[in-house]
Amino acid sequence: MSLRSEIFEQPEVLARLMDVQMKDVERTARSLKKRKIDFIFLAARGTSDNAGLYAKYLWGAYNQLPIALAAPSLFSVYKKPPCLTNALVVGISQSGKSPDILSVIDEANRQGTPTLAITNDPRSHLAKTSEFMINTSAGPEKAVAATKTYTTQLLAVAMLSIALKGDKKRLSELQGLPEMVENALKLDPAVEQAAERHRNMEKCVILGRGYNYCTAYEWSLKLKELVYIFAQPYSSADFQHGPVAVISQGFFVLAVVPAGEIFKNMMGLLSDLVENRQVKLLAISNRQEALSLAQTSFPLPNDMSEWLSPLVSIVPAQLFCYHLTRSKGFDTEKPRGLSKITLTR
Amino acid sequence: MSLRSEIFEQPEVLARLMDVQMKDVERTARSLKKRKIDFIFLAARGTSDNAGLYAKYLWGAYNQLPIALAAPSLFSVYKKPPCLTNALVVGISQSGKSPDILSVIDEANRQGTPTLAITNDPRSHLAKTSEFMINTSAGPEKAVAATKTYTTQLLAVAMLSIALKGDKKRLSELQGLPEMVENALKLDPAVEQAAERHRNMEKCVILGRGYNYCTAYEWSLKLKELVYIFAQPYSSADFQHGPVAVISQGFFVLAVVPAGEIFKNMMGLLSDLVENRQVKLLAISNRQEALSLAQTSFPLPNDMSEWLSPLVSIVPAQLFCYHLTRSKGFDTEKPRGLSKITLTR
Repeated sequence: MSLRSEIFEQPEVLARLMDVQMKDVERTARSLKKRKIDFIFLAARGTSDNAGLYAKYLWGAYNQLPIALAAPSLFSVYKKPPCLTNALVVGISQSGKSPDILSVIDEANRQGTPTLAITNDPRSHLAKTSEFMINTSAGPEKAVAATKTYTTQLLAVAMLSIALKGDKKRLSELQGLPEMVENALKLDPAVEQAAERHRNMEKCVILGRGYNYCTAYEWSLKLKELVYIFAQPYSSADFQHGPVAVISQGFFVLAVVPAGEIFKNMMGLLSDLVENRQVKLLAISNRQEALSLAQTSFPLPNDMSEWLSPLVSIVPAQLFCYHLTRSKGFDTEKPRGLSKITLTR
Repeated sequence: MSLRSEIFEQPEVLARLMDVQMKDVERTARSLKKRKIDFIFLAARGTSDNAGLYAKYLWGAYNQLPIALAAPSLFSVYKKPPCLTNALVVGISQSGKSPDILSVIDEANRQGTPTLAITNDPRSHLAKTSEFMINTSAGPEKAVAATKTYTTQLLAVAMLSIALKGDKKRLSELQGLPEMVENALKLDPAVEQAAERHRNMEKCVILGRGYNYCTAYEWSLKLKELVYIFAQPYSSADFQHGPVAVISQGFFVLAVVPAGEIFKNMMGLLSDLVENRQVKLLAISNRQEALSLAQTSFPLPNDMSEWLSPLVSIVPAQLFCYHLTRSKGFDTEKPRGLSKITLTR
């Protein structure tokens, strides 16, 4: 039962990551500030790519850094990498073994561009060939579906963001994270019941925007990996540019809609979907207005900042996927057709 | 019947775009080469965003330019835009009216960063506020589902790529494009029959990689907009990092697999899906090996370069969506719940 225990380990591993690595991340931030960095070039796959999405918003909005998500095939298949002058190249990989991510780091090294690895294996090739490294320190992850390595990747992204800015206020907010995750885990019995009610769900769309765009993607990936549900993630804005057409009465819509800048915007869309298109809405939120609109709702801590919310909002989503997997009679530890490390080129 | 006539107009509008705008694009390229550009920051939504994906690969592989696809909400919702020093900011929009794309251009102007609009309306706000502009010159597009404005956006991206490099060989290859598209349109009766055989398809995955990653996305968007099919696009590499788990016997897989660098890699995955997971494969390709593997196949011109293939491979996909829409008894001109211009912020 690695999946369940790894979900429940999260308060502990998140606290440990801050404890053990913050000084090191601050040193890395000081070194990076001496470099000329116009933009971040970020390479990742799967769950790690979803952590990259969080970086795109957090480093973008808070550190004013534009983020280019790499097309690894330009390096590994086409062998025509872009010119990385004035970039910081970041590779995110739980195992540190994915060949296409390594090919991006290798090219950055050839071009003399600074590189940063975010990985759970400090002895991996990725860690060893990168100039800087954040060890997500989550301990071995045995379940095929990544959970604690995802949230620790998000935390690593947040720690670097704060260190680059030297922001004491955000740093102290971050200290409250393990407790928020602990509270989210208390939703477990309610989530189990909700999962039972979703036993017949075969497809769904998952909406998130801004900071929680990554949550929509990660929730969707977990539903596909574990429960074989055809789940499509969208930003609420992209969704309105075409995909909204697929929605018909009774369609399952899952939404991540915490208080914050995107709230009003998301609520406009969700109200329309519920009132005019009669969808079945499941909402993860810390605002009563959103929780009341939904047929099924998972409440989040009230006082959580939007920038920090992706580290908490994914937790009920993970529990939901776990219980739905069991409720459908599938194996939480051995999803069909997947292995822990995928060696794509 | 705007949709059908606009699909069939494509050889003509593509030829006209090259005729009318190439000199102007070459002037733009000369001006851009005098600027210091470390990376491209590109903003677009919906179909235009898929043209942006083509730019990510073509400008990346051929012009060595890293491409950051903008998160427009950082500008329009969070109002915390990244610092755009040494970027070229590109906005792609058929109408030139999308508020969130305009907010990216406005911010670039505030920061003094050069801007380029790719739009079908040279009198739009987008065109007027951008320093440089490529007019896709496709004529009015009346169908809600974009077809000729998509292929002309791709062509605009290709023309700028060639102009920046001064590549006479590619320029002459480009001259052959209208004829290739003309030939692809001759597949119409075969595509109509194939669409009839896919009448019961309710969901599918669409695989593409590299240059044709955009084709997978655009095909998927058209299937959602017009036929309300739950279609999910993937790069063959991302697909193997989790989503492959959703595949079971009889699942519909559509694939864009032209000859080129990605061919071997894609064929490995497709063979596995057909042989070990018994999927129903529809392939668009110019290689016999791929066409033979598929239950349904749309052959492309033999001598087409991979970098140019997205401008041709989307054509049978458009025809397929058109015929499937009719075959299912839906309205090709008025998809439910969509309007031509989506004013997201």
